[in-house]
Amino acid sequence: MSCNSNVHSAISPSHIAIRGGTVVNADHQFRADVLCRDGRIVAVGEQIEVPAGAAIIDAGGQYVMPGGIDPHTHMQLPFMGTVTADDFYSGTAAALAGGTTSIIDFVIPAPQQSLLEAFHIWRGWAEKSAADYSFHVAVTWWSDSVAAEMETLVRQHGVNSFKHFMAYKNAIMADDSVLISSFARALELGAMPTVHAENGELVHLLQQQLLAQGMRAPAAHPLSRPPQVEAEAAGRAIAIANVLQTPLYIVHVSCAESLAAIARARAAGQRVYGEVLAGHLLIDDSVYANPDFAGAAAHVMSPPFRPAEHQQALWKGLRSGDLHTTATDHCTFCAGQKAMGRSDFTKIPNGCGGVEERMSVIWDAGVGSGWLTPSEFVAITSANAARIFNIYPRKGSVSVGADADLVVWDPLASRTLSAATQHSLGDFNVFEGRTVQGLPSHTISRGKLVFERGELRAERGAGRYVRRPPFAPQKQILQAPGKHDKQGSKQK
Amino acid sequence: MSCNSNVHSAISPSHIAIRGGTVVNADHQFRADVLCRDGRIVAVGEQIEVPAGAAIIDAGGQYVMPGGIDPHTHMQLPFMGTVTADDFYSGTAAALAGGTTSIIDFVIPAPQQSLLEAFHIWRGWAEKSAADYSFHVAVTWWSDSVAAEMETLVRQHGVNSFKHFMAYKNAIMADDSVLISSFARALELGAMPTVHAENGELVHLLQQQLLAQGMRAPAAHPLSRPPQVEAEAAGRAIAIANVLQTPLYIVHVSCAESLAAIARARAAGQRVYGEVLAGHLLIDDSVYANPDFAGAAAHVMSPPFRPAEHQQALWKGLRSGDLHTTATDHCTFCAGQKAMGRSDFTKIPNGCGGVEERMSVIWDAGVGSGWLTPSEFVAITSANAARIFNIYPRKGSVSVGADADLVVWDPLASRTLSAATQHSLGDFNVFEGRTVQGLPSHTISRGKLVFERGELRAERGAGRYVRRPPFAPQKQILQAPGKHDKQGSKQK
Amino acid sequence: MSCNSNVHSAISPSHIAIRGGTVVNADHQFRADVLCRDGRIVAVGEQIEVPAGAAIIDAGGQYVMPGGIDPHTHMQLPFMGTVTADDFYSGTAAALAGGTTSIIDFVIPAPQQSLLEAFHIWRGWAEKSAADYSFHVAVTWWSDSVAAEMETLVRQHGVNSFKHFMAYKNAIMADDSVLISSFARALELGAMPTVHAENGELVHLLQQQLLAQGMRAPAAHPLSRPPQVEAEAAGRAIAIANVLQTPLYIVHVSCAESLAAIARARAAGQRVYGEVLAGHLLIDDSVYANPDFAGAAAHVMSPPFRPAEHQQALWKGLRSGDLHTTATDHCTFCAGQKAMGRSDFTKIPNGCGGVEERMSVIWDAGVGSGWLTPSEFVAITSANAARIFNIYPRKGSVSVGADADLVVWDPLASRTLSAATQHSLGDFNVFEGRTVQGLPSHTISRGKLVFERGELRAERGAGRYVRRPPFAPQKQILQAPGKHDKQGSKQK
Amino acid sequence: MSCNSNVHSAISPSHIAIRGGTVVNADHQFRADVLCRDGRIVAVGEQIEVPAGAAIIDAGGQYVMPGGIDPHTHMQLPFMGTVTADDFYSGTAAALAGGTTSIIDFVIPAPQQSLLEAFHIWRGWAEKSAADYSFHVAVTWWSDSVAAEMETLVRQHGVNSFKHFMAYKNAIMADDSVLISSFARALELGAMPTVHAENGELVHLLQQQLLAQGMRAPAAHPLSRPPQVEAEAAGRAIAIANVLQTPLYIVHVSCAESLAAIARARAAGQRVYGEVLAGHLLIDDSVYANPDFAGAAAHVMSPPFRPAEHQQALWKGLRSGDLHTTATDHCTFCAGQKAMGRSDFTKIPNGCGGVEERMSVIWDAGVGSGWLTPSEFVAITSANAARIFNIYPRKGSVSVGADADLVVWDPLASRTLSAATQHSLGDFNVFEGRTVQGLPSHTISRGKLVFERGELRAERGAGRYVRRPPFAPQKQILQAPGKHDKQGSKQK
Repeated sequence: MSCNSNVHSAISPSHIAIRGGTVVNADHQFRADVLCRDGRIVAVGEQIEVPAGAAIIDAGGQYVMPGGIDPHTHMQLPFMGTVTADDFYSGTAAALAGGTTSIIDFVIPAPQQSLLEAFHIWRGWAEKSAADYSFHVAVTWWSDSVAAEMETLVRQHGVNSFKHFMAYKNAIMADDSVLISSFARALELGAMPTVHAENGELVHLLQQQLLAQGMRAPAAHPLSRPPQVEAEAAGRAIAIANVLQTPLYIVHVSCAESLAAIARARAAGQRVYGEVLAGHLLIDDSVYANPDFAGAAAHVMSPPFRPAEHQQALWKGLRSGDLHTTATDHCTFCAGQKAMGRSDFTKIPNGCGGVEERMSVIWDAGVGSGWLTPSEFVAITSANAARIFNIYPRKGSVSVGADADLVVWDPLASRTLSAATQHSLGDFNVFEGRTVQGLPSHTISRGKLVFERGELRAERGAGRYVRRPPFAPQKQILQAPGKHDKQGSKQK
Repeated sequence: MSCNSNVHSAISPSHIAIRGGTVVNADHQFRADVLCRDGRIVAVGEQIEVPAGAAIIDAGGQYVMPGGIDPHTHMQLPFMGTVTADDFYSGTAAALAGGTTSIIDFVIPAPQQSLLEAFHIWRGWAEKSAADYSFHVAVTWWSDSVAAEMETLVRQHGVNSFKHFMAYKNAIMADDSVLISSFARALELGAMPTVHAENGELVHLLQQQLLAQGMRAPAAHPLSRPPQVEAEAAGRAIAIANVLQTPLYIVHVSCAESLAAIARARAAGQRVYGEVLAGHLLIDDSVYANPDFAGAAAHVMSPPFRPAEHQQALWKGLRSGDLHTTATDHCTFCAGQKAMGRSDFTKIPNGCGGVEERMSVIWDAGVGSGWLTPSEFVAITSANAARIFNIYPRKGSVSVGADADLVVWDPLASRTLSAATQHSLGDFNVFEGRTVQGLPSHTISRGKLVFERGELRAERGAGRYVRRPPFAPQKQILQAPGKHDKQGSKQK
Repeated sequence: MSCNSNVHSAISPSHIAIRGGTVVNADHQFRADVLCRDGRIVAVGEQIEVPAGAAIIDAGGQYVMPGGIDPHTHMQLPFMGTVTADDFYSGTAAALAGGTTSIIDFVIPAPQQSLLEAFHIWRGWAEKSAADYSFHVAVTWWSDSVAAEMETLVRQHGVNSFKHFMAYKNAIMADDSVLISSFARALELGAMPTVHAENGELVHLLQQQLLAQGMRAPAAHPLSRPPQVEAEAAGRAIAIANVLQTPLYIVHVSCAESLAAIARARAAGQRVYGEVLAGHLLIDDSVYANPDFAGAAAHVMSPPFRPAEHQQALWKGLRSGDLHTTATDHCTFCAGQKAMGRSDFTKIPNGCGGVEERMSVIWDAGVGSGWLTPSEFVAITSANAARIFNIYPRKGSVSVGADADLVVWDPLASRTLSAATQHSLGDFNVFEGRTVQGLPSHTISRGKLVFERGELRAERGAGRYVRRPPFAPQKQILQAPGKHDKQGSKQK
Repeated sequence: MSCNSNVHSAISPSHIAIRGGTVVNADHQFRADVLCRDGRIVAVGEQIEVPAGAAIIDAGGQYVMPGGIDPHTHMQLPFMGTVTADDFYSGTAAALAGGTTSIIDFVIPAPQQSLLEAFHIWRGWAEKSAADYSFHVAVTWWSDSVAAEMETLVRQHGVNSFKHFMAYKNAIMADDSVLISSFARALELGAMPTVHAENGELVHLLQQQLLAQGMRAPAAHPLSRPPQVEAEAAGRAIAIANVLQTPLYIVHVSCAESLAAIARARAAGQRVYGEVLAGHLLIDDSVYANPDFAGAAAHVMSPPFRPAEHQQALWKGLRSGDLHTTATDHCTFCAGQKAMGRSDFTKIPNGCGGVEERMSVIWDAGVGSGWLTPSEFVAITSANAARIFNIYPRKGSVSVGADADLVVWDPLASRTLSAATQHSLGDFNVFEGRTVQGLPSHTISRGKLVFERGELRAERGAGRYVRRPPFAPQKQILQAPGKHDKQGSKQK
């Protein structure tokens, strides 16, 4: 359905047993039953004993995987007096329908706004979530009070990552001075700096040049944000992280050049992590040539979709380990909203959907083709995000003690994706018409069966805020690359 | 002790409980007790119930990790009428003393010799092993019978990896024709091809040139095998694997140039794995300048130790994920044997020890310096080898159902390494005089406590042969890199 | 015309004056007249005095450039009892028609054949040449006599380059042992080793696999020689050259991967030179999909044409300076000859034409597009080959004292290329139907006007053998890359 | 001498003939005499006729090369109420003594200052120059008036390059907005943008951190400007140039990481040029460990001297063609001036000398070691700068019509460099004590013999301002890298 949603309520016996499936974790896969109780996994093994009254799911011929984590969504995002179509309820409900059981959304304070104030506003909006959620907090300006509020967020509110927009000049862009101050602060607090990597000055210039040349249609959008604009910013953020000796997470890596910058940094021993969007893996820039404004504008997001050879590079990065997570940047503006930019592409609200389709399109193209193993799929859709943002193995693994966030995955089921049948309230589907093989048959969130063979039983407000502790292992021990040398050569 | 060994017998209650430690797996670490019974791990958790009569190990303040796997040893290697100092018993006993509970050794048939015949000879020698063992089998020549025996080894004898020497011209060198035939056969059988990467023709030329110039001392050894000689061969093996679409494992990567070749291949999506030796991580080529023949000759191995900047590169490769395993190439020729090359460095038997020291020296320089996390240490000393050679999680993890091969690791204990105090029967220690912090306090092999605070209770013949099944997950699904593209773009 | 040629005789006044043009050398361009006498350039300058009786060419609005040098042709090549359509006369005549005034062809001794014997046979064939010519000599086998004959060729016959085929197993392939011996010998003699870089063992395997799968048509040809097969061999030759410290010239670099190997070597300070064919710059592998056997077979050459993205890479290499020369590998087998491989693509005689079109197609696509300057055009079509093969500035420059080998280039003239109008006796034109802008209006060879506005006056036997001295400057001073360090740091 | 100078006046017959030497140009070397008249070269050839009365220089056994061009000097630079020791007279006199006959200095307007006003001030100072000179003009701020003045400078004053400091926050640093505006303007005007590449924000942070830690000595200087700080800025400038499609010249490339960024851009077809300082090629960062403040402070310049492995990389870059010019950044502050930073390293005036030693130290380490040919030496010390800044072949070549700026180079002469014997008025010599082989025996500037075997006859005011026209060839034809593709594939 489009811009409308109709979901059922979740069934909730105290126990759910998943029998006969193949459990897939990021490190290996094995035949096992899984028993959930009170929102936790309490047993994983062959032939486990199932208590009377337990709901039983037959996973024969299917995979049992940790529910997906989408580390990059914008639900209910306010923009120029309007707001995205999906609020935290409809957005997380759509996620559950696609096998994703957690999202990490963004608190975006306006420059000069208190980070805590913004954080509480977003927390309030998110209370209606049907799935678990957490928040990155954006640093869009700098002052001593921002530094102080970062500490409060980390220590009292379970925030362990801060986002920086290197684009969007004259709005929320963080210049080098802000980046450096904030990265250094994050390092002290044990939090992860993240960046949207695009050089906002170059984008601004190119936008002005294009408009001056009369290029006002969506086709100008990708021209205003070429790959070098992204790669430059990625390289700059990496250099800053290198000098400050902090890890770094780069969101929505969309092009070969940014990936190469990450690969170089990693080869030099730097702890840099890359996220790629489902859309960038599968959609190319030909969409902007659509003469229909609505069709082209519906694909306007930043970074834009790229020429097809970049998709190849991104798939390789997922396999090589230079890219770590997959996300969607789910941000659903409907046609009426997109129309704000009808005569000026720079005014088109940026954003596309995908939270519901991510798992299926990546399985289909990634695992179905033989490029990735099921374990690698779990790593890039769930476990890696959990590890990087320090909520593993509570999230991201099928193991005793973990949250019972699970998806039963039917590798043979297929479906043709369409806005007409999606649960998201957006009115467009960037994967429209794509037939995918590999679908969730059941989704379990916090121990409740919330999706079963097409029937969605998402429950408004059932999702919980997920606190993420600072000082993830890879962070705690971060040291100067040279330090081990002395150790390494301390031969008598 | 040196060229002599004295070990106690293992205690063997039916249960061993390890309490109060921090369990470290490759994906994360957590506080838990571990209970072993009949050679398996039967429980991992907080406050597990310990049966009466169980032996109890107090792991307070210590790490509980999977026992090390050394995927590259040469125990009891025959050479020119003599044999290495360590046989399978003394060598595996030394391994246990250092926290390593499994080795993968090499069956090396002579050209024209039956692979099966050689395999059975080595199996016979290995029956005295104190720790678990497995075998890579070398392919040193080619014929239809070799192809047929490879199948027998894979299907009936649990061999899933074949080794190829690209060096040692006029002896066991495999030329491109052999490499190509054998890699193609391994692909069909679901086995992993591995290579010793050095261009044997170039080594031969350089050796002849150096001897002709009167350079006959060990100092000429590294000059006869410069990094480019290794990198060329690594690149060639990678190209062959690429064209045939088989994964590849490169043993003892010793230089930045080889690592770069691996990194490029991996960035292009190829499944190439790299092994690095503890010695190459920590010892530089200044050892060959030793005017004392015995001292210099004791370090003669191939590839040789490298200028110090290569160590930096190798440590970075371990962190970036372009190198995967650590090994030793343990191959202990004593001074009398090394003396065969007194007047001609090309006649010095190649080999150094290290199976006993590997875990400690890597922990000390890698984790002690902050460069690697404890989980990364487990990955590179144990879990990755188990995954690549398809015996995970039976080996390489602390989890219910796994073999009870464990090491309790005391991060504060320290010791000065020396030939005088080693358990290996070699008469030299390449780490002589190095003080390391981080030592095994207890080693458990197949559920038996075989090492406790310096006291070794290795049992002759207690080790079992480990069968390794073919078609590891990363192998089964290997496909042409392009194949997913069609899938990836199957948009209607 | 096709498989037939009709040329006029050259006019030959003692002087030719070219007036009013823009002289283009590799380092810069400038307005100047050029006066030739007795086969040499005797004056270059503004308003030079022209002797009475001199022929005068009006070069107004045109460029005056050194005649092209094609460093890679196979005229009159014998093959399986037949011979290429172009002999040394028709082939060099076609070259002159296209603005190329010198070729370097190949003497290819059979294994076990004397190099000198073969050299004299080729010299005899070449006496009919209409343009100047020289020879690379192939080393296809090794013995002391080969080493001795290399010296004779260098010292007595003006040969300063030796070619090695790394492909063509069971025929003329040089294995590593031959390569190493021959490179080392070339280094002693001050000669340049060159390689055809393809791994012949891999090609052989792939050919057998494809034939076994029933793929017998020309479409299988590129599949049997993928880029990695070329890049492997390039990397191997580079490594051998690196270890031996000799410069290296790689013929017909056709893919991004080989270029990358060259770029890496050059960045490390190694003197490696790359040649690219006009065909590889402009034609992609879609030609092999031609269902018409003759059309597809006509494009069968090795390395094959590549997917279009490789063209991009090669153009970048020409601009960056990692590729140095352009050639054609002109080798014209007609349809009847190509038909030998009708039922087996491995039997199709390899080769395509191009010696006549090279200058125009590269000017059109390279300079016409703005990618290259006219001076860069001169460098890659003439001056660089002259410098690398040590005949500069006698060839490759418009300067006083140089041979009067000149082309007057009309940047506005255009023409549609076709087998129907070519001078080559081949019956096919790989650039058929391509309209190019930028053509020679006049070609002067050794001071004679041999081509004027479409009228060819090539003279049988007018070409001379060009002796090339050894120890080119870049060769003479080649030293170990490290040697300067000691110098560099000799601070007191 | 130190901080004092005593020079003789130049002899000036109307003709000078240089006989018996080997002329070296960037493309080749050859035996020839050279005749100069009225400031120009009028003949180059074997056995040229020498007019009566001509001064004759015997160049037997010597090289005759174009005089050096130092494209990066700061003579008479005002700083905090003081000025560098060398003014335009003493500085250019020292240059002549070392074989350098032209400099390109910098006009550095203060933010908000008129570029033209500053230009005229510098022009006035430079009138006393003994050698030819030209000016890069710095863009340190932005406004419409700056854009307009850039045009005036290009069209009326012969300026074709603009400099941007990416370092020096709160002073002359150009942020991205200024860089982008100025690069775009330079592109329109046919001028070359150049950058001092260091991230000024990171330098500022590191300086504050170091001072806060009590590190106030010169030893902190290199810690405040690590290689990544330089490489980031180089990468950013390259990305901006890439997006705007302008060429780019990066001054004083000092580290492997910046060089790698240039090499990547060039391999991608971008026209980026790199300059390296003699000091960075030969001096390492151990100089900052000098406990003597004066000794350490004398080496304070930016970028700082680097660990020795970077020198290796820079020499390789000169040979590979990824670095193009050599310079000095000659900027001589004496001990009393350096003392301003005695208690705060950030206050030490930045700068070192070298204009007199550049040619000799580079010849000695570069050509003397065999790493570079004499022609390559001419390219990197003279011809390349002339070509990039569009004054070739008037400068940078020994050819008829060129300015008679020549150096006769004695490859066997040697000398020990020292502040005690230098002509520069600085009181320090960064090459103190280094013995070099290869010295100018004679320097000719504009046809006058100004230096002869140690005797300097520089003439105050004899130097002329060199106008440099815009739209150098490599600039005029710069196009989008993709544009040729359409051309390249325009096959019918």
